[in-house]
Amino acid sequence: MKIQLGENRYGKAENRVVRITRKQGTHHILDLNVSVQLSGDFDDTHLNGSNAKVLPTDTQKNTVFAFAQKFPAMEPEAFGLTLCEHFLDSQSHVTRAEVRLEQYVWDRILVDGKPHPRAFQKNTTLTRTARVVVDRTPNGSKEAFVSSGVEDLVILKTSDSEFTGFIKDHYTTLPEATDRIMATQVTAKWRHDSHDVQSLKKKDFAKSFTVATERMLATFAKHYSLSLQQTLFEMGKEMITQQPDICSVRMSLPNKHHFLVDLSPFGQENKNEVFIAADRPYGLIEAVVNRDDAPDAGFIWPAW
Amino acid sequence: MKIQLGENRYGKAENRVVRITRKQGTHHILDLNVSVQLSGDFDDTHLNGSNAKVLPTDTQKNTVFAFAQKFPAMEPEAFGLTLCEHFLDSQSHVTRAEVRLEQYVWDRILVDGKPHPRAFQKNTTLTRTARVVVDRTPNGSKEAFVSSGVEDLVILKTSDSEFTGFIKDHYTTLPEATDRIMATQVTAKWRHDSHDVQSLKKKDFAKSFTVATERMLATFAKHYSLSLQQTLFEMGKEMITQQPDICSVRMSLPNKHHFLVDLSPFGQENKNEVFIAADRPYGLIEAVVNRDDAPDAGFIWPAW
Amino acid sequence: MKIQLGENRYGKAENRVVRITRKQGTHHILDLNVSVQLSGDFDDTHLNGSNAKVLPTDTQKNTVFAFAQKFPAMEPEAFGLTLCEHFLDSQSHVTRAEVRLEQYVWDRILVDGKPHPRAFQKNTTLTRTARVVVDRTPNGSKEAFVSSGVEDLVILKTSDSEFTGFIKDHYTTLPEATDRIMATQVTAKWRHDSHDVQSLKKKDFAKSFTVATERMLATFAKHYSLSLQQTLFEMGKEMITQQPDICSVRMSLPNKHHFLVDLSPFGQENKNEVFIAADRPYGLIEAVVNRDDAPDAGFIWPAW
Amino acid sequence: MKIQLGENRYGKAENRVVRITRKQGTHHILDLNVSVQLSGDFDDTHLNGSNAKVLPTDTQKNTVFAFAQKFPAMEPEAFGLTLCEHFLDSQSHVTRAEVRLEQYVWDRILVDGKPHPRAFQKNTTLTRTARVVVDRTPNGSKEAFVSSGVEDLVILKTSDSEFTGFIKDHYTTLPEATDRIMATQVTAKWRHDSHDVQSLKKKDFAKSFTVATERMLATFAKHYSLSLQQTLFEMGKEMITQQPDICSVRMSLPNKHHFLVDLSPFGQENKNEVFIAADRPYGLIEAVVNRDDAPDAGFIWPAW
Repeated sequence: MKIQLGENRYGKAENRVVRITRKQGTHHILDLNVSVQLSGDFDDTHLNGSNAKVLPTDTQKNTVFAFAQKFPAMEPEAFGLTLCEHFLDSQSHVTRAEVRLEQYVWDRILVDGKPHPRAFQKNTTLTRTARVVVDRTPNGSKEAFVSSGVEDLVILKTSDSEFTGFIKDHYTTLPEATDRIMATQVTAKWRHDSHDVQSLKKKDFAKSFTVATERMLATFAKHYSLSLQQTLFEMGKEMITQQPDICSVRMSLPNKHHFLVDLSPFGQENKNEVFIAADRPYGLIEAVVNRDDAPDAGFIWPAW
Repeated sequence: MKIQLGENRYGKAENRVVRITRKQGTHHILDLNVSVQLSGDFDDTHLNGSNAKVLPTDTQKNTVFAFAQKFPAMEPEAFGLTLCEHFLDSQSHVTRAEVRLEQYVWDRILVDGKPHPRAFQKNTTLTRTARVVVDRTPNGSKEAFVSSGVEDLVILKTSDSEFTGFIKDHYTTLPEATDRIMATQVTAKWRHDSHDVQSLKKKDFAKSFTVATERMLATFAKHYSLSLQQTLFEMGKEMITQQPDICSVRMSLPNKHHFLVDLSPFGQENKNEVFIAADRPYGLIEAVVNRDDAPDAGFIWPAW
Repeated sequence: MKIQLGENRYGKAENRVVRITRKQGTHHILDLNVSVQLSGDFDDTHLNGSNAKVLPTDTQKNTVFAFAQKFPAMEPEAFGLTLCEHFLDSQSHVTRAEVRLEQYVWDRILVDGKPHPRAFQKNTTLTRTARVVVDRTPNGSKEAFVSSGVEDLVILKTSDSEFTGFIKDHYTTLPEATDRIMATQVTAKWRHDSHDVQSLKKKDFAKSFTVATERMLATFAKHYSLSLQQTLFEMGKEMITQQPDICSVRMSLPNKHHFLVDLSPFGQENKNEVFIAADRPYGLIEAVVNRDDAPDAGFIWPAW
Repeated sequence: MKIQLGENRYGKAENRVVRITRKQGTHHILDLNVSVQLSGDFDDTHLNGSNAKVLPTDTQKNTVFAFAQKFPAMEPEAFGLTLCEHFLDSQSHVTRAEVRLEQYVWDRILVDGKPHPRAFQKNTTLTRTARVVVDRTPNGSKEAFVSSGVEDLVILKTSDSEFTGFIKDHYTTLPEATDRIMATQVTAKWRHDSHDVQSLKKKDFAKSFTVATERMLATFAKHYSLSLQQTLFEMGKEMITQQPDICSVRMSLPNKHHFLVDLSPFGQENKNEVFIAADRPYGLIEAVVNRDDAPDAGFIWPAW
């Protein structure tokens, strides 16, 4: 029996970078959580402890902060691409660089109804995410994979949701529901269809993010839902249709159950008014929605 | 040596009530986390296991949900008062009822710029809180203590904050800062000055909350800060001044440090642009700001 | 209307100190989370921003780390006393120093059944806590208040627990239970009866902690429980009886409900075998158990 | 442009099952968190909302609890296999069933040094995990993939760890370290080499888990580490060597940095004694260690 090294990668995770940009008295915040991972020829450190090819994770951290100063006001996807390029260009034995980013949203504080130029409150309604993978191809060029996304976004609708006509087996006790609360916490990622680093760096990721998110939310609101699966598909379909550079959307939607409380023991009727919000267990609906000509996902899309 | 029972209370914590109210096709959500605690003559259950005076915590839970149906669309403070009244009125051996509430804010989803009447996204920028204590007085009447508050509100300003002129002792290494990021996560509670249950139930807690929160945020934004302590005092002072039924404000403000990153080893100058957001340790500034005629806080204000 | 400063304090929270002590090849870890708070004459910083009396929280942090080197291998209570003494002795305008400590437990890794002298695994079964408050009295001496405690300790018994004979009102649906799972997550604090700094510093807090915790657990295991309140009282009583320098025990015991699952729809009988562990809501039972001659708690015991 | 459904699955997540088994006055706890996911022919529910092929997640939950009563005292891997078999056997359009399990460890409370037969304390030093995937093959038989693992296990060594000889580039400031604290929080999974459901169900997973975990910990303790990567490889190699049915080990090891505190400003020398335990950022080292004849991982091993 021989023991071998398989897939491996390493890096510095959760670098909490806050970049302030000042323009004539108005300040802007870019607030990021940046994680870097490198793969390549790292057998020596694993097999015999030689670190001659190891760029320390501390150096990766320094690079993240130094680049935040050099390249201000970038969208997270572009910042990730710039970092990946650097690591591939400067480390010839690195064959893949990955950067994951979380961006925290800050709103301006309103003072007498007017946004303050230099004071902010954190808007945690959603976290914007991005993931960038750049591979060194066999011919020495670079192939990029970029996804954008959203996390921590909790949505709920109080009408236009039912769940009926399902299988009843020996273990089924669930009654059919023709009018239920539907609530979920959205984790969504969407892939951009280009693999070219330079053209991706010029892309308007801010607009793409806004359109994708708005269409996703509007579809959730408007769609008459026969199942959370159907709603998921409609949300993804609308995002791709309205923002066609998105070639694929992947969503993970926990079904955050709101159970109608039985008030009949107290002589009260509960006309779909009072619910208990349950923590666990929860349904979990996951699916990918694709444009039929979507290119390969590479490593941007971990298999489940 | 004799062993005695001291202070005690019991109840059902974290009842997650969602109350939907429907008005001609427009739905409203009241989303609460309600915790009840009762005190009184409970020696028997502690000392000999007799539960003859114990109203089960399960019954308290049922009461919370039943009352959410009976008394819709109440402000959290008023809902807490109504629950406390019920427990004191129905359980003669209960001498104090306490209710803590957290209210989660839901915004309407925008569909083509218009708020949807029945679809929502959770706004976690802040959590609204309330605490109600109602005591049965020796003469049998009720005395209420009500506080409102806010949690999970993260704010940051990029100008108008310094910290200088402090004590330097043997262990001091901190340089003076004339231009720093100031950031904190606000936990604030404010007391209302009435102790009368009926008049408190009629109070416009929604307006009071809006005014208090807006003035707190505006003061943070506008104030030129010589210390976080000074900013805290100004915030509390402005809240009481603008919303005079508030007699006292208590704040706990962690100083969420943002450290300037030294980029000089890389030949870069960091002109107050790039910061690392630190997790721990953090400064912690806590104070109470009072109107000079503030009535006694009773048990609404736990001592530190 | 005049606005005044009320109670206030400030300090550095959550200093994560790891202190290694080496004795002839065997290493020992003291792993603490230390939070310091100072009170005293701090009107100036709140009211006009003068920091002339402010010892920076950064200096407090430095002091914690410097003292961890100077005073190795101390019990958390003694480390807190030493820090409080320092701040009162060196800052004449400070009238109260408070230190809260969490100690994380590390077990030695077993290698072929033998504990390794320099390799450890974290034992998160419980977190040991301590709180120290030292007041400067009007005559200039120091008065200390010390409590020890435990958090994050989850315990469960599968027999000898019932809950019957309780009040049934209009909202009661709970059936009586003559054989139930009883589970809780213990947060307990116990006060030591001396107020003298020097004698407290010599106390064997390690032994006291071990005896108190062992007796608490053994009582939970052995006691036939008619209510969680009764079990709480018996646990506290036994702790004080067996470790008589403890004058008071305060416990907060959430009733972590385990509900019997109804398997009858599937033709199965559930003979107290299969339970669902519920998250929320939970019962919450809180009480203090006192020696009849317990001295005043001062500020060590925040009122509820 | 056409929009298509891609990969999808659904199920009930985080079913918190507690199973008590009683043997002559001695009780045993199996405490699991069970998540089920099904894949197969579910186009209809996504594309047109027909639920005719949807087994509700509520039914999956019921099945988990019913099976916990029917099949007591199973190892988590075997319980997962039994559930997967059921869903494939009873739902002909399901082509893959997945079950993830977390098992919480309970120790018996010691009463006067003796383990109590019916009272327990939760041992959160590690969480045992398992993942089971069973695929329906084109010829209608079943192919199983099973991994076991551990989470939440924090380990630390105070000697025999260095990190030197690494790349120094423009952004490197890290000094070489010849004697450092090495600490990590282990997330490890290991694959079992059989794909046969029936033989896997008979496997002694308890022994396999004990051997794998003990060898992993002993290797961490004993190995002289030149990098965390090298330690990871040695840990995986030893696990496979000592428990040869394990064909592959995958580990994710955050490097939990402990930074030596500079005490020289205070005139103190820090001889590797006082450290600050940092939260973020952290290094992250991930690798797979394989037996050279390891069979295909199928879907048990999500690609990164």
